[in-house]
Amino acid sequence: MKKIGKQTIKFENPVNILNTACIVGPKESDGPLAKYFDKCLEDEFWGESTWEKAESKIIKETVNTAIAKSNISQDKIDFCFAGDLLNQCISSSFGLRELNVPFYGIFGACSTFVEGLSLGSVFVESNVAEHVICCTSSHFCSAEKQFRFPLELGNQRPQSSQWTVTGSGVAILSKSGDGPFITHTTVGKIVDMGIKDANNMGAAMAPAALDTLLTHFKDTGRNPSYYDAILTGDLGYVGKEILIELSQSNGYNIKSNYNDCGVMIFDKDSQDTHSGGSGCACCGTVFSGYVYKMLREKKFKKVLLMATGALMNSTSSQQGESIPGIAHAVSIEI
Amino acid sequence: MKKIGKQTIKFENPVNILNTACIVGPKESDGPLAKYFDKCLEDEFWGESTWEKAESKIIKETVNTAIAKSNISQDKIDFCFAGDLLNQCISSSFGLRELNVPFYGIFGACSTFVEGLSLGSVFVESNVAEHVICCTSSHFCSAEKQFRFPLELGNQRPQSSQWTVTGSGVAILSKSGDGPFITHTTVGKIVDMGIKDANNMGAAMAPAALDTLLTHFKDTGRNPSYYDAILTGDLGYVGKEILIELSQSNGYNIKSNYNDCGVMIFDKDSQDTHSGGSGCACCGTVFSGYVYKMLREKKFKKVLLMATGALMNSTSSQQGESIPGIAHAVSIEI
Repeated sequence: MKKIGKQTIKFENPVNILNTACIVGPKESDGPLAKYFDKCLEDEFWGESTWEKAESKIIKETVNTAIAKSNISQDKIDFCFAGDLLNQCISSSFGLRELNVPFYGIFGACSTFVEGLSLGSVFVESNVAEHVICCTSSHFCSAEKQFRFPLELGNQRPQSSQWTVTGSGVAILSKSGDGPFITHTTVGKIVDMGIKDANNMGAAMAPAALDTLLTHFKDTGRNPSYYDAILTGDLGYVGKEILIELSQSNGYNIKSNYNDCGVMIFDKDSQDTHSGGSGCACCGTVFSGYVYKMLREKKFKKVLLMATGALMNSTSSQQGESIPGIAHAVSIEI
Repeated sequence: MKKIGKQTIKFENPVNILNTACIVGPKESDGPLAKYFDKCLEDEFWGESTWEKAESKIIKETVNTAIAKSNISQDKIDFCFAGDLLNQCISSSFGLRELNVPFYGIFGACSTFVEGLSLGSVFVESNVAEHVICCTSSHFCSAEKQFRFPLELGNQRPQSSQWTVTGSGVAILSKSGDGPFITHTTVGKIVDMGIKDANNMGAAMAPAALDTLLTHFKDTGRNPSYYDAILTGDLGYVGKEILIELSQSNGYNIKSNYNDCGVMIFDKDSQDTHSGGSGCACCGTVFSGYVYKMLREKKFKKVLLMATGALMNSTSSQQGESIPGIAHAVSIEI
């Protein structure tokens, strides 16, 4: 393992992604990727009395599913990296309080899933861990309530707004196995270009995605064509177009092999999610469900997964602040 | 570097703490450790219009102070680990948005400072980083407003409540230098013993502190007497007494060399903080100010620093949930 360039770590013994799991809510279950998810819930409560408790149950059961699918016992997991969008990351800490595994709480907003893969890979590669588990969740109802308006108000949502994915994505990393493998991680810096519209997260996060993307290409000497797929976490339709344009003006054409998990998870015409999906679980479930299976079936051979996060809260918006963004990337190959 | 026992990482080339910095608010400046802090503020705003912006300024300037004291240029810092108590950790992301360093956001509530030292040490030891910076902050006014009641209400505080420290603590870790050195980290698990009183954090976090302390002794084969000082982050007077008792009933007498940063930072008789200090900056400033200087002056030779966090938010308390706790430890020697 060594640092190459300014922000990239190259794993000389690439880190195996042993298995993944994902559980999603009802809207995601009606989307085009439904068949790739481990479990599709019929409602947003899953038998719980509040959305926050439901989100905790979702991350807990997704972790249990990932462990079961991996055929390892829970006590073989050395460390857990987990975080979510709820204030003080309570979905993770309540959902995983019985996990009984050394726990590092992380917060990268919607970039959390890849932040976990990045940190977890360093731990596996440096031989302090045989297995690590990387977990994240989000929930449409708990996120709307916390970041925007009470759902009961029935507020109209602008066309640039995105739909927080209800679900959880979990990956177990290990020293050995037959791949897919994490070969590099490019760790993002905070980038703030002054966007203040909390209903246009795609525009706020696109500059951070560009920064990490360009840095990844410079650090590794690669071009967009190296990858079968370059996938951002949740820029949505608006942010995706901005990233394509910004990349083009910096000399990189990503049009043919680039997509965004927020664009992929919902159907644009029938599902009325405006600019697409968002939330920690957007990248988490699309990767853990669809992308991981494509890698295992060798339909993708080289993927750059780059999750983006908007590092704001409702108080900062009320105080007139702009929205700092961040993007973390991992390169995954079979 | 290798994992020993269940939760401990031993650094075979101990990680150097190159330098530290801390800035504190006015109440901390009236306390017994005032002379050890780099800067003592005269009010809670520091020229800003809101408490949140003031907290961001405090972490930003503490980072600048740490870098200046370390005699390294900012571009020599490979990674930043930072987090705080505000929803979505906005103190860190706004305060450090111009830092221009690859950024891992972390959340461990008041355990965040030691969580950063723990992760940062793994990065330095595994040779992917020459220098990392570990940062945290908290602010009495922004925390009271967010977690409890508007300050303007003038609510009476129960005797078990603690006073969130206004300030920031920052440490820069490096591969080389003359110490003090981080030799081990014991990574905590989430522990929830069912305490529900959000005005008695010490009682909620003490079982997690006990769990990490006992595990540290088992994993390393050490006893309490190995250390000149065992320091918890912010158990306060109530939690400190509980931890002493719980340790005693598990066969470890820590009475003679154990103290808590929340007990140390304020004067019990004159400062009316009830059960003592708390917040990410409690452990952060007491370590970065007082403890680090004691280590450099060889007045302490072996310190176990264990920060404790309560992983709840105001919604979870309103929904009748108990308070999960966590404690992360680092062993520091000269």
